[in-house]
Amino acid sequence: MNKAYNSLELATLLNGHLEGEARPVTGLSSFQQPRQGTVVVVNNYEQIAALEHAPISALIIPESLKTESSQPHIQVGDTRLALAKLSAIFAPEFGTSATVSPQAQIDPSVKIGRDVNIAPGAIIGADSVIGDRSFIAPGCVIGQGVSMGKDCVLHANVTIYDGVELGSGVILHSGVVIGSDGFGYALNKQKAIKIHHLGSVVIADDVEIGANSCVDRGTLNATKIGARTKIDNLCQIGHNVQIGSDCLIAGLVGIAGSTVLGNNVQVGGGAGLADHLVVGDGAQIIAQAGVSKNIPAGEVWGGYPAEPFKKWMRKRYLVSKLEQIWQFVKGANKHD
Amino acid sequence: MNKAYNSLELATLLNGHLEGEARPVTGLSSFQQPRQGTVVVVNNYEQIAALEHAPISALIIPESLKTESSQPHIQVGDTRLALAKLSAIFAPEFGTSATVSPQAQIDPSVKIGRDVNIAPGAIIGADSVIGDRSFIAPGCVIGQGVSMGKDCVLHANVTIYDGVELGSGVILHSGVVIGSDGFGYALNKQKAIKIHHLGSVVIADDVEIGANSCVDRGTLNATKIGARTKIDNLCQIGHNVQIGSDCLIAGLVGIAGSTVLGNNVQVGGGAGLADHLVVGDGAQIIAQAGVSKNIPAGEVWGGYPAEPFKKWMRKRYLVSKLEQIWQFVKGANKHD
Amino acid sequence: MNKAYNSLELATLLNGHLEGEARPVTGLSSFQQPRQGTVVVVNNYEQIAALEHAPISALIIPESLKTESSQPHIQVGDTRLALAKLSAIFAPEFGTSATVSPQAQIDPSVKIGRDVNIAPGAIIGADSVIGDRSFIAPGCVIGQGVSMGKDCVLHANVTIYDGVELGSGVILHSGVVIGSDGFGYALNKQKAIKIHHLGSVVIADDVEIGANSCVDRGTLNATKIGARTKIDNLCQIGHNVQIGSDCLIAGLVGIAGSTVLGNNVQVGGGAGLADHLVVGDGAQIIAQAGVSKNIPAGEVWGGYPAEPFKKWMRKRYLVSKLEQIWQFVKGANKHD
Repeated sequence: MNKAYNSLELATLLNGHLEGEARPVTGLSSFQQPRQGTVVVVNNYEQIAALEHAPISALIIPESLKTESSQPHIQVGDTRLALAKLSAIFAPEFGTSATVSPQAQIDPSVKIGRDVNIAPGAIIGADSVIGDRSFIAPGCVIGQGVSMGKDCVLHANVTIYDGVELGSGVILHSGVVIGSDGFGYALNKQKAIKIHHLGSVVIADDVEIGANSCVDRGTLNATKIGARTKIDNLCQIGHNVQIGSDCLIAGLVGIAGSTVLGNNVQVGGGAGLADHLVVGDGAQIIAQAGVSKNIPAGEVWGGYPAEPFKKWMRKRYLVSKLEQIWQFVKGANKHD
Repeated sequence: MNKAYNSLELATLLNGHLEGEARPVTGLSSFQQPRQGTVVVVNNYEQIAALEHAPISALIIPESLKTESSQPHIQVGDTRLALAKLSAIFAPEFGTSATVSPQAQIDPSVKIGRDVNIAPGAIIGADSVIGDRSFIAPGCVIGQGVSMGKDCVLHANVTIYDGVELGSGVILHSGVVIGSDGFGYALNKQKAIKIHHLGSVVIADDVEIGANSCVDRGTLNATKIGARTKIDNLCQIGHNVQIGSDCLIAGLVGIAGSTVLGNNVQVGGGAGLADHLVVGDGAQIIAQAGVSKNIPAGEVWGGYPAEPFKKWMRKRYLVSKLEQIWQFVKGANKHD
Repeated sequence: MNKAYNSLELATLLNGHLEGEARPVTGLSSFQQPRQGTVVVVNNYEQIAALEHAPISALIIPESLKTESSQPHIQVGDTRLALAKLSAIFAPEFGTSATVSPQAQIDPSVKIGRDVNIAPGAIIGADSVIGDRSFIAPGCVIGQGVSMGKDCVLHANVTIYDGVELGSGVILHSGVVIGSDGFGYALNKQKAIKIHHLGSVVIADDVEIGANSCVDRGTLNATKIGARTKIDNLCQIGHNVQIGSDCLIAGLVGIAGSTVLGNNVQVGGGAGLADHLVVGDGAQIIAQAGVSKNIPAGEVWGGYPAEPFKKWMRKRYLVSKLEQIWQFVKGANKHD
């Protein structure tokens, strides 16, 4: 059960200002499905008007909107940030029992911190270290010599190979695989000879990785993912890749071996990056782009093969003129 | 062991007509590898001729083909539909022992219907409900408060997060993850603040989802997949997505957050759909298209970025004329 | 603990020639992070010069480089092949305890070879056969009637459906799913009727498949993957697909149903192949290509839709001339 709140307390937590009656708040609901006693984040007058008679406890509105709504409302500077904060407040708690299940299979050498929760059916190999308050769900398989910081959450059926290092506050969703061998072979008379991957994977604090994504281990050194970087579902991070901090990588993205991303890089869904590239800080890659060249810091690239956004847009404009060009050429040839 | 059939019974089950001798039928095999005593679905005279002396029990042929084959044959209106029916008849039965393994870890509060089969190594959280005749394979992890209808099949190593609702007849292949958090963050000084996902996932009757596909939970409301929709392997269905009924979504497709698909939509393999789009009933999206705009009902779109099919084909035609255009422009410039 | 080596022994194992002092070798490290007592593979004079004073045991250099480095060095014909051999020599050994865990759940009918290692939490169904020295990690679920050759490695949380056949030396990374149903339906009044997949999957010797990749079973016959073919992470191999030997398939590739690849085919990351295609021996497909036609043996194809490489490059060249073409057409129209 979550703690009880009222809208005045929430206004304070959101650095906002409550107009109207302070009421108890039982949760967070949506504009489309407002639930009794909850707060609802809205962004425009239409949404405010539609909720005029909803049995909610308060609206959360941008301070830029001047409303005379009879609903109590909390004015905030950034409604999306308010949504994030409220979602944390009203998220169902889980893994709070802080027990290590006797039905988990944990090597006796594993060092387990305080208030750790390890579910039945989890398996942890020799010499691994699990930090305070970390949660390991059923079906997770953690190899030998894995180190995991504090406050990590491993959802069900995550696999961590031997020797991987996770910082604190790392969230791994179900089906994530960290530390599998990279796709590296030497060719000998057209036959692929496996290059065993002796490197590891190092994941910094507060990284979140979506369901069924994979991060391969490095050939000799570590594949690295920087602090607070978020990776969506079904992404492939190749061996030796180095990703900076605060990157956002959407679903079904593939980053091939040894490519380096700076900080604050954003990659749209389905994009692919070739191997051994360098992508500068703050670069943005459009969804489904096929990147085969280095991208300088701060640039936006799209297309297949990818190129700077303006160049790509100009090319698309010119291609849209092809009908006119073709009619002109046909006409000119007729005159000859 | 499957029930024994003969070809006359099968003709009745297929709404077809048997020409020739009724024989026992032990299974279904292929034109390339016909096995003794089986039925084989064929579609043309070459295949019929090639099987003239095969030791099979009957051919299944389209009623539009007039054949004098000496093989017994069952004429049917739709051979592909006949194939589907026969494949169900001769599919190996599994999970028929209808037992709940003592080596499954099931919270005492779970409500289990009749003739349910729960394999060793499956784990089911508190307050979940499992409908009659459902089958849960080894390694499946089902969270708390999950509801599952009748006749569901969860293959090995499926993960269902808390609160997800499955209808009846739902088939989830191995590695499927339902209910993971959506990829939603608020940016605060370039740092991503997690938006916890309080919504759920609701999957209607007779949906089938392929191996290692993911369906994220909604932010505040439910991500929804409509009745009889089929999703292939390695697909990503983002948070808040609404998919109608009878859709077919091929492998490696990504559908970004809050996008809405109508009924009977078909999406080719590797296609990607941006967020907050609306795709109308009966629309078709070509494989590997990159969809960044709404698609009206009934339209076929392809390309990157995707556009209406005819427009895309015209553009490809015009691009194929570029050599001619370029030679013309070069020639004209020479004359200047 | 790995066996101890010295650099003279390694030179022999690599078919190379040691110049300088023979020293004990404790491992393999990288040019960027040379570790004491290790060997380091280098490919140019800059790398050699940078390691002049590193406390390593020997450099591995191409025999084409004439160096006067004071470091002992082993000259080899192919440094990448040397890297592969060294990586195998210094790879951490695992699964060497050769025990069958009492906490694995193995049907009594399973035939287990010599020196097999089956981890706790693995589950193996009736009538399966596990070859000598094979290793099955925790969380693996192996169905009924599965046959597995010698020296296979199944990393954690792999799923093998009933009846699948694996050769010897097969490596499957975590989350791999082999034998799930293909995406095949018959449409009956716009409703998809499931075609049950009665075929199987046959994987030949020395195949390696990356994390979370999927191989669907055939409709009536087997989906096949030829000897020594390597498949990267998150790939989708559709039902009835036939892949030859010695193919290399990079990450996030999708191959749709019934497509046939010859031997020595290479497919770049993120590429998609439509169904029922034939790709000849030695063909190469560029990353993220969308292949919708057959590809003759030995050809290189790229683009969306894919076409022969030279044609694609020419098209890209012509598109880059569009600015000039457009200016010409605008100018000509002005003159009219």
